Amino acid sequence: MADAYQLQNGGGDKKPLLELYVKASGIDSRRIGACLFCQEFWMELYALYEIGVARVEVKTVNVNSEAFKKNFLGAQPPIMIEEDKQYTDNRDIEGRIFHLAKEYNVPLFEKDPAVEKRIESLYRNFKLFVRAKTDFDKGKKDLQVPSDIESLPAAIKIHYNRIVEQLASIDQLLSDRQTRYLLGPSMTEYDCELMPRLHHIRIIGQRLLGFDIPHSLTHLWNYVLTAYRTAAFIESCPADQDILHHYKEQLNLFTNQRETLQSPTKTHTLPETVLDEIKRIGLDRK
Amino acid sequence: MADAYQLQNGGGDKKPLLELYVKASGIDSRRIGACLFCQEFWMELYALYEIGVARVEVKTVNVNSEAFKKNFLGAQPPIMIEEDKQYTDNRDIEGRIFHLAKEYNVPLFEKDPAVEKRIESLYRNFKLFVRAKTDFDKGKKDLQVPSDIESLPAAIKIHYNRIVEQLASIDQLLSDRQTRYLLGPSMTEYDCELMPRLHHIRIIGQRLLGFDIPHSLTHLWNYVLTAYRTAAFIESCPADQDILHHYKEQLNLFTNQRETLQSPTKTHTLPETVLDEIKRIGLDRK
Repeated sequence: MADAYQLQNGGGDKKPLLELYVKASGIDSRRIGACLFCQEFWMELYALYEIGVARVEVKTVNVNSEAFKKNFLGAQPPIMIEEDKQYTDNRDIEGRIFHLAKEYNVPLFEKDPAVEKRIESLYRNFKLFVRAKTDFDKGKKDLQVPSDIESLPAAIKIHYNRIVEQLASIDQLLSDRQTRYLLGPSMTEYDCELMPRLHHIRIIGQRLLGFDIPHSLTHLWNYVLTAYRTAAFIESCPADQDILHHYKEQLNLFTNQRETLQSPTKTHTLPETVLDEIKRIGLDRK
Repeated sequence: MADAYQLQNGGGDKKPLLELYVKASGIDSRRIGACLFCQEFWMELYALYEIGVARVEVKTVNVNSEAFKKNFLGAQPPIMIEEDKQYTDNRDIEGRIFHLAKEYNVPLFEKDPAVEKRIESLYRNFKLFVRAKTDFDKGKKDLQVPSDIESLPAAIKIHYNRIVEQLASIDQLLSDRQTRYLLGPSMTEYDCELMPRLHHIRIIGQRLLGFDIPHSLTHLWNYVLTAYRTAAFIESCPADQDILHHYKEQLNLFTNQRETLQSPTKTHTLPETVLDEIKRIGLDRK
């Protein structure tokens, strides 16, 4: 039913063992799918694993398999299991991780309303943009090439503008704070939320929308680079093809063999000019 | 995409309008499906609506429809919408309801660790029992008649015993407290969690497992009766057939026309002897 994706046992046998069931890719059920909540919790669990608080096992599950349905009776990933306890609700999963973090003084759940406000509606607005733009592009001749942003009607451009504004406001916050992660030198739940979403925006922007995070947002790009250098993010990140496949499936777009037969790849590099600018102003050495 | 299930507009136009998208039944997408989180939030929203804090609209959605997938890009019900904000995460939905309740001093989220401990693993254990018993019954000649609890092998009976013990401990708590709801005279989030789960246990027990909540647990049955007299529960409750269909689907059991063609019915009555006992000791007059 579940393919063991990763085994991470850190010696000590008194540590709690947390099993996380994440949604498999629609291309290959042994690969990680593009479920954002799954990646978010995986990153949090990774943080606990890294400092030796817990043992963590992650398994990909095919939600359409009879075995999965029977075992979980209608629950959807992410699902966390600890001994005989099954956590099928995001509130409960987070509650358990929160208590473990608290018990071991891991500053994973520090609160910051300013950060919360900046990031909360970004992905929601991105989804509106994806829907509007792909709908618009369906009328086009060459479906493989997304239409130019500049040529969009005002009703769709409004979504684009909102995304860019929000990305700029996160860039500004990062520039003001001059920190590696959103709250400081170490990763918190806000990063576990934002990093996967930014990566989806980047991959889907590039492959489906003809959109990129503006190259002028150097601090934001540097934050993306931080994600690409954070083990918790890298380990839990689906391949580009699996991310694209997920959106195409939901949008009822034609899936071509380029994605389903390709060897999975992960874009974890930055555009060259952006990387040069980051190096020039020395952000990468912070 | 969504069928408007219910419109509940309480006059005042400054009240926030909260739209809740709940999973439709697999039998008929205009009917409510057996999604426990959906019912839980629906009950909480109903509580806010009842006292005039918010306007609430509930819509059933067919999660397999292209329109749904496109609108929500992979998110699953329950989904709550307020103005242009989409809440697709149980943590966010609860967070919003929590803040509204707090703003208007609605005691919906009072904490009670003793109650939390008693109810937390009940449904999880029930799922283990459902799976083990239906697996066992698959080997039987007459698949329509569930095997007798007494005849079960020890490995399955252990699940049964655990459920009965937990139900008895909730009965004891209700007997000690002598309250209408778990915490007092008014409904809290704990009731929104427990009532739908108890009802599923009852319906699935009766129709699939040959199991009933022990009739000796008078205080627990009286609590079930309270659910059947609580508007928030009644309104949000799926029909028996839709509950049964959900479990059969997950368990990969044969669905017969009895369920799919029957007019939907809701069992909101108690066994006669239990009701007599409740009346005899005067619980129903509290």
